[in-house]
Amino acid sequence: MGERDRIARFFTPLASREPGSFDLTDDAAILTPPPGQRLVITTDSVIETVHVLAAATPQQCAQKLMRRNLSDLAAMGATPWRYTLNLHTPTTTDDAWFAAFAGTLAAEQQRFGLTLIGGDTTSGGDRIHVTMTCFGLLEGEALRRNGAQVGNDLYVSGSLGGAAYALSWLQQNMPVSEALAARYHCPEPRLQLGKMLQHVATSAIDISDGLLADIAQVCRASHVAATIHRAVIPLQHELQHEVQQNPEAWRFALSGGDDYELCFTAAKNAREAVASLAAKIELPLTRIGEITAGNGVILLDENGAQLPITQGGWEY
Amino acid sequence: MGERDRIARFFTPLASREPGSFDLTDDAAILTPPPGQRLVITTDSVIETVHVLAAATPQQCAQKLMRRNLSDLAAMGATPWRYTLNLHTPTTTDDAWFAAFAGTLAAEQQRFGLTLIGGDTTSGGDRIHVTMTCFGLLEGEALRRNGAQVGNDLYVSGSLGGAAYALSWLQQNMPVSEALAARYHCPEPRLQLGKMLQHVATSAIDISDGLLADIAQVCRASHVAATIHRAVIPLQHELQHEVQQNPEAWRFALSGGDDYELCFTAAKNAREAVASLAAKIELPLTRIGEITAGNGVILLDENGAQLPITQGGWEY
Repeated sequence: MGERDRIARFFTPLASREPGSFDLTDDAAILTPPPGQRLVITTDSVIETVHVLAAATPQQCAQKLMRRNLSDLAAMGATPWRYTLNLHTPTTTDDAWFAAFAGTLAAEQQRFGLTLIGGDTTSGGDRIHVTMTCFGLLEGEALRRNGAQVGNDLYVSGSLGGAAYALSWLQQNMPVSEALAARYHCPEPRLQLGKMLQHVATSAIDISDGLLADIAQVCRASHVAATIHRAVIPLQHELQHEVQQNPEAWRFALSGGDDYELCFTAAKNAREAVASLAAKIELPLTRIGEITAGNGVILLDENGAQLPITQGGWEY
Repeated sequence: MGERDRIARFFTPLASREPGSFDLTDDAAILTPPPGQRLVITTDSVIETVHVLAAATPQQCAQKLMRRNLSDLAAMGATPWRYTLNLHTPTTTDDAWFAAFAGTLAAEQQRFGLTLIGGDTTSGGDRIHVTMTCFGLLEGEALRRNGAQVGNDLYVSGSLGGAAYALSWLQQNMPVSEALAARYHCPEPRLQLGKMLQHVATSAIDISDGLLADIAQVCRASHVAATIHRAVIPLQHELQHEVQQNPEAWRFALSGGDDYELCFTAAKNAREAVASLAAKIELPLTRIGEITAGNGVILLDENGAQLPITQGGWEY
């Protein structure tokens, strides 16, 4: 199938809800955001062997691509709206791959409420290489990284370490449970949480590079420091036993990355609001530390002793 | 230099004019188009060995990337405004490369009036692979591919075949003049023309895939046919002699692609307007054929005999 036929068959149907996409047949798309809403833009790629495993399925490529991007919108409190796609595939990639990739995007669009508006395709190279640029809508103020204040509490959503722990097994071709594998292959962008945090949190970031590295980003942007109590970090349940046996396994949660949970700060007097939010959306929100004056991140063990930050494998 | 330092040093300065870029330190950017203007979005990639030569210079990569994208905005009559960048480079790519790449982008931004707002970077893979998503602004109606009408004249800007002809020499490591090489390395997006055509042309497309292929796109979108008179096609001057010797060389102009000239249609009674526009912007606009009823593209020789379309190397 030629490139144009492939676009028409597999991708034009994904663009049908947006007239400004011109059915992907023109030079560019035209977007008109609804009145009073601002456009939030993020872009991320998925490259075979870097962000997904070698020989990842088309489903895994599509889900990881979509969710990496949506997680960035979640961290800002934005609602997914439109996206463009750059699809670069080896010449050997067949129509079945494109059909499955587009089929997964269709399901993801439906689930997250967004629509394709344009893109480009190229054949060549030795690996799948896909980029998405994602457009969200935002009413009111964005959640930013730079709003953390001294005395704020520090929270994370869900549990940490699952993605990196799953990856460590998958890379060795070892069997892992479907639920654990999904932590790596198919992360859950915390869109509902991000939106509801707009009036509760003072700052937010999604955990893509690892908890310590991402908190360090918040600290840098906010000109503050953070103290984290390792013992209360919510661990992926398979890891809870593992860290007892082998404290080295803490690195999966501290610096593993790819969990796409949200890390956020909130005033101490917002504790009730955070608790009621957690109950409402049925997602654990765990207080793991506090924001202090200064700079950098301090990690404490269960006795309050400072842990060397390199123990977590933290590369900064 | 680490990834974050590299972004801060080379790319944050490119984002300073847009407060919504947050100096590239946040999860996403926020854009607020000026009132009454619509957002035009296009995206294209440059991959080493596909869109630029193997071992292309950082300047060549940056210019080709920027100009491929701007040409799509030109074809719609939009004005360049903002862009995102996905930068995927081998681990061996050094700071000197990034400095030169960013330096060229800075010059291109200045020249074309746009500003970086975000992106991502990844190390790995065996070749330079960069993607740009470009945001233009548009007042009034967009130039589209679907407006060509039976009886319209068909025009092209500038001259054709230069990019593909240059490439044919460059690929053999043969010396070419700087001006000819620039046709391939550094195409000129016809932004001023596109904008001024908004009220003159009935349809437009940029010639990226080759004249015949791109006119075929206009015909399909507009449900019309086109007749082209080969003898009046404006050729890159080095090709004018070449086609006398070797008619095969017509393929550079007919199906070479990468020229990024604009091809457009206009009513017969707009001939004076087109001529005065050409004079005003000092760019040749040549009438090469006409739009007829039916579908497909007909190519005629100097005697009015129909040429087999495969002679041009046209792959459709």
